[in-house]
Amino acid sequence: MKIIYLTMTTILMTAVGVWAGDDAPTALSNKEAIDLVQTHANYLWTLVAACLVFFMQAGFALVEAGFTRAKNLINIMMKNLMDFSMGSIAYWAIGFGLMFGASASGWFGTTGFFLSDYAPDGDPWVLAFWMFQVVFAATAATIVSGAMAERTRFVGYLIYSVMISAFIYPVFGSWAWGGLFNGGGWLENLGFIDFAGSTVVHSTGGWAALAGALVLGPRLGKYAKDGSIRPILGHNIGFAALGVFILWLGWFGFNPGSTTTADKSIALIFVNTNLAAAAGAIAAMVVSWIKFGKPEVGMTLNGTLAGLVGITAGCANVAPGSAIVIGLVAGALVVFSVMAFDKIKVDDPVGAISVHGVCGAWGTLAAGLFNMGGTTGKIIGVQLLGIGADFLWVFPTAFIMFKLIDKTIGLRVTPEDEITGLDVTEHGGTAYPDFEVSSAYSQS
Amino acid sequence: MKIIYLTMTTILMTAVGVWAGDDAPTALSNKEAIDLVQTHANYLWTLVAACLVFFMQAGFALVEAGFTRAKNLINIMMKNLMDFSMGSIAYWAIGFGLMFGASASGWFGTTGFFLSDYAPDGDPWVLAFWMFQVVFAATAATIVSGAMAERTRFVGYLIYSVMISAFIYPVFGSWAWGGLFNGGGWLENLGFIDFAGSTVVHSTGGWAALAGALVLGPRLGKYAKDGSIRPILGHNIGFAALGVFILWLGWFGFNPGSTTTADKSIALIFVNTNLAAAAGAIAAMVVSWIKFGKPEVGMTLNGTLAGLVGITAGCANVAPGSAIVIGLVAGALVVFSVMAFDKIKVDDPVGAISVHGVCGAWGTLAAGLFNMGGTTGKIIGVQLLGIGADFLWVFPTAFIMFKLIDKTIGLRVTPEDEITGLDVTEHGGTAYPDFEVSSAYSQS
Amino acid sequence: MKIIYLTMTTILMTAVGVWAGDDAPTALSNKEAIDLVQTHANYLWTLVAACLVFFMQAGFALVEAGFTRAKNLINIMMKNLMDFSMGSIAYWAIGFGLMFGASASGWFGTTGFFLSDYAPDGDPWVLAFWMFQVVFAATAATIVSGAMAERTRFVGYLIYSVMISAFIYPVFGSWAWGGLFNGGGWLENLGFIDFAGSTVVHSTGGWAALAGALVLGPRLGKYAKDGSIRPILGHNIGFAALGVFILWLGWFGFNPGSTTTADKSIALIFVNTNLAAAAGAIAAMVVSWIKFGKPEVGMTLNGTLAGLVGITAGCANVAPGSAIVIGLVAGALVVFSVMAFDKIKVDDPVGAISVHGVCGAWGTLAAGLFNMGGTTGKIIGVQLLGIGADFLWVFPTAFIMFKLIDKTIGLRVTPEDEITGLDVTEHGGTAYPDFEVSSAYSQS
Repeated sequence: MKIIYLTMTTILMTAVGVWAGDDAPTALSNKEAIDLVQTHANYLWTLVAACLVFFMQAGFALVEAGFTRAKNLINIMMKNLMDFSMGSIAYWAIGFGLMFGASASGWFGTTGFFLSDYAPDGDPWVLAFWMFQVVFAATAATIVSGAMAERTRFVGYLIYSVMISAFIYPVFGSWAWGGLFNGGGWLENLGFIDFAGSTVVHSTGGWAALAGALVLGPRLGKYAKDGSIRPILGHNIGFAALGVFILWLGWFGFNPGSTTTADKSIALIFVNTNLAAAAGAIAAMVVSWIKFGKPEVGMTLNGTLAGLVGITAGCANVAPGSAIVIGLVAGALVVFSVMAFDKIKVDDPVGAISVHGVCGAWGTLAAGLFNMGGTTGKIIGVQLLGIGADFLWVFPTAFIMFKLIDKTIGLRVTPEDEITGLDVTEHGGTAYPDFEVSSAYSQS
Repeated sequence: MKIIYLTMTTILMTAVGVWAGDDAPTALSNKEAIDLVQTHANYLWTLVAACLVFFMQAGFALVEAGFTRAKNLINIMMKNLMDFSMGSIAYWAIGFGLMFGASASGWFGTTGFFLSDYAPDGDPWVLAFWMFQVVFAATAATIVSGAMAERTRFVGYLIYSVMISAFIYPVFGSWAWGGLFNGGGWLENLGFIDFAGSTVVHSTGGWAALAGALVLGPRLGKYAKDGSIRPILGHNIGFAALGVFILWLGWFGFNPGSTTTADKSIALIFVNTNLAAAAGAIAAMVVSWIKFGKPEVGMTLNGTLAGLVGITAGCANVAPGSAIVIGLVAGALVVFSVMAFDKIKVDDPVGAISVHGVCGAWGTLAAGLFNMGGTTGKIIGVQLLGIGADFLWVFPTAFIMFKLIDKTIGLRVTPEDEITGLDVTEHGGTAYPDFEVSSAYSQS
Repeated sequence: MKIIYLTMTTILMTAVGVWAGDDAPTALSNKEAIDLVQTHANYLWTLVAACLVFFMQAGFALVEAGFTRAKNLINIMMKNLMDFSMGSIAYWAIGFGLMFGASASGWFGTTGFFLSDYAPDGDPWVLAFWMFQVVFAATAATIVSGAMAERTRFVGYLIYSVMISAFIYPVFGSWAWGGLFNGGGWLENLGFIDFAGSTVVHSTGGWAALAGALVLGPRLGKYAKDGSIRPILGHNIGFAALGVFILWLGWFGFNPGSTTTADKSIALIFVNTNLAAAAGAIAAMVVSWIKFGKPEVGMTLNGTLAGLVGITAGCANVAPGSAIVIGLVAGALVVFSVMAFDKIKVDDPVGAISVHGVCGAWGTLAAGLFNMGGTTGKIIGVQLLGIGADFLWVFPTAFIMFKLIDKTIGLRVTPEDEITGLDVTEHGGTAYPDFEVSSAYSQS
């Protein structure tokens, strides 16, 4: 009996590895190994999603370039490349610390600048998380580029892009998302729902775009003295449409990637994102068809983006049917919003204020209205508070910043340069030298 | 002894967690945790692959736009954006239920419409699976766009795109793939091999394209009365080539993603997909070089796609060397097929019928011929049956549908509109206003 | 007691599954299952990364097309498509075996040709690994295309592309990386640090590009007899900029994917890759601003690529702050290098020699200088040895090969063909038939 017992014990011990050799697995070591594989999957998903969000930079660049004139293409590509490049360095040095560092005041973080929270022998999760966050910061930054297209001094734009990535975006971000690493920002502690950033990213970009467009004023020739509005046509609709496809793709990183975890919850977010985009495209096409007599491509492309912005806040907490409704409203809303801003002579060449500012606000409200767990007056109130807080923080701050840039180094190019085109005057180049340009090219 | 025994037991119990605290892992809880991590990896792969397949929409749009005239670019982008958008909603409402719902008749499913199989507290796999399937449905739909380019009324195209996504594609899909969720379609129960859809997706799109091209008739000026064929040149080979690169990339989601499982089997599928595409490009280039005296870009680009379509059915069950042979045949076949359809005056501006219909059939046959486990007369017979069943279902149904659209709201634009270009007449826009257009632009 | 003991044993046995039913998990079976899930994650990451690197083919094509003239676009797209297609087949047949096969001599492998190391019932890892390696080989190959643009015979280019993929690249690759499957190449056994291929891929491509540009000579009209240098403008800066965004995206597969393992280490590589690219863009912009008076788009785009090439060797063993320094130096270096090669009349239309050759060398040196574990004279010596060995192997071999091609079938087109443009003369096509071309189009 004793012998049998010992033998048995040995077998058991070997099987569960309690005192077996170094490599023998135990339930506990297995549990740790399982957690590690899941962690690897989380890294993988977060960083693949960051790739998709990074690619949105190309999408925004193409949409802006496509919707504007050939004589400003180089300038637009330079702005879009440099806001990401300078933004990356600024977010590394300052922004990430303000947004996710430990916070004494509760209003912004004060640690983790220059990625100092990372030690080579420590946990590299902060690096994966930074990578995902920097492409978000850059999205907020690049939204503004479109609204300020075709008339902004390049050096002024560079200063702006550092400011939003280092300061304006991270401060609001810390209110709504900062708690991922520390005690929690005041908005998220109230229960503010903005899963992937309808407000945090898109409205922030949209309200900064509004400030920029107002400080700059409209492009020459856009609004005639008799009150009529002259459409300034985009020079390459192929670029614009490709840009929208790329943005739709990138949003599959933007929304589901915001889990920063590889789990089952990403499926719902994928489906909601896709359905809202489709509904936004359909709604904008139908509304433009009714209003203008024909299904208009610019509005339809912006309707797609409007649907995507709209579902960004609620992508994880609304049902697929609600996602369609949210997208339909966003797609219709963007058409009316674009027309309204044109009416009050706010010249936004690509519709960025409407797509990101207005539809970002709608999406944030909708995340409360269509909450699968039910909605209450308190939920709606907090959503409205978040929407308002973003506007009240971003718009005045950005407005003052643009005014300061304008009064010091100058924000707007000269009328002569604007007519010539910024490619020649700001960059000494021309984007399409092998083609004959039409009279529209050098029109003001 | 007793004491030792109890101590031992305690150690063992702790180690295997049989009656330890809540969090103590056991072999069983570990097994469940492992399965869950693998499930997470499956979600991740299926959804990342869906991203890649989604991006094929941009690829198809660019290929079609590049191979046609500048005056129809907006129309092409609108068609490609809207067939995905309307298709997404149609597949959510109807198509997915027909294809994968429980089936009483064995001919199509009758449950799961409006994603009603999904409950917020249930398993979200149906959402991940839907996301992967909707991008497949959209691929079938968008193939047709190219064959009908430059002369189709936009409203007629919208109706078509809903019909194929909601009805034509899902019904055949249920025969060949429906069993993923229910008892199995009749074709798959016979052993039909079409791993990622040479027939289910590509031939379905190709035969619908043939029906559309026949009902529409050729573009004005394509076939002269003296029997000569006038080439109508694509306006932007850069777009077309970029589109092919994007499609090649997307196919790495299309074929390997069809596992919907993150396991080792995807490696073979990747390699086969890549080698067949490369072989298709080489074969088409060589054949075009022999036949036309120069390596022709349009044929070479289509040869790449032909190789990809060809390997789609057999990507998981043929060896890499066979993939090269399949691709070589597809690449040569597509050149002869394009010329043959031109000869019988079926005007297919991008070669969609040849690439997807003809090479889809070849690929489906090849999946039987080169089966790694060996081939038999029965296997070949079932493959031919599947190829035939697809043609017999899709072509007549699509033909009747296009005829009905033609007789009611009208499928083809007026000759005047065709000459002016659909961008102006259907959408009130122009794709490249800053450039001087050549006389080719407004040619019929 | 006995009964209790047996009952207990039964419980334990069940729990650990020692002699329970087939499916009952044990610590050991769990450990194996965990390893398998991790293996699946490794496959997934390696193959998704291969997708990203594949997409770099589109990026290189767009950069080259954008920086050259419209009359050569078809030729450029054909070259970029075919170097990948022919390279894939060549690397399958020969290259992979030379690079990773078992080696008797220690200078190159001699097994694994035609993927013969893969058996259908064996481990498919060799397939996943091949897929990742073939896109690397293709990157080295396609780099050369840009330096030889606008004047190379298509058939000569095809022969070159087979030679580099089958022979030149794999042989050096086996010295630095071959040990992944066998005993180790001589360079890696010395401790050579080139994690993702600043030297192995980029300098190899760059030095072959130098050989090609020298054998070809400059484009007609590039260098006047009075010594002045005429800029030949790129025809589509939108394509070039999109190409750079795609390359940046693809590099997130190139560098982190080189782990071929889904683990935490990819986070640091992502961050370093991103920061170096951003720094490279900024540095090149600033230097071009200082030197030319305006922030120049071509230099800035190349500066981005320079930063990416620079961080490729050291992406896994330097700190983020060092990545910024490496990128800054690379971005500045590329401007001076491009100007220097122009001064000595080496006509490189896209700057490939400077971006990939020179900055590849810099990056390899920097991987030693900024090594997180500290640097020594020996480390620096080995890095310099690797840089030198690559030049001494690649440049003479490629030079002789290009000379042989030139003397036999001819490497350069006739002056008439060069003025007409290679699209017409080599491919019988025209890339933009709907647009009026400017006088620059048919300029020599």
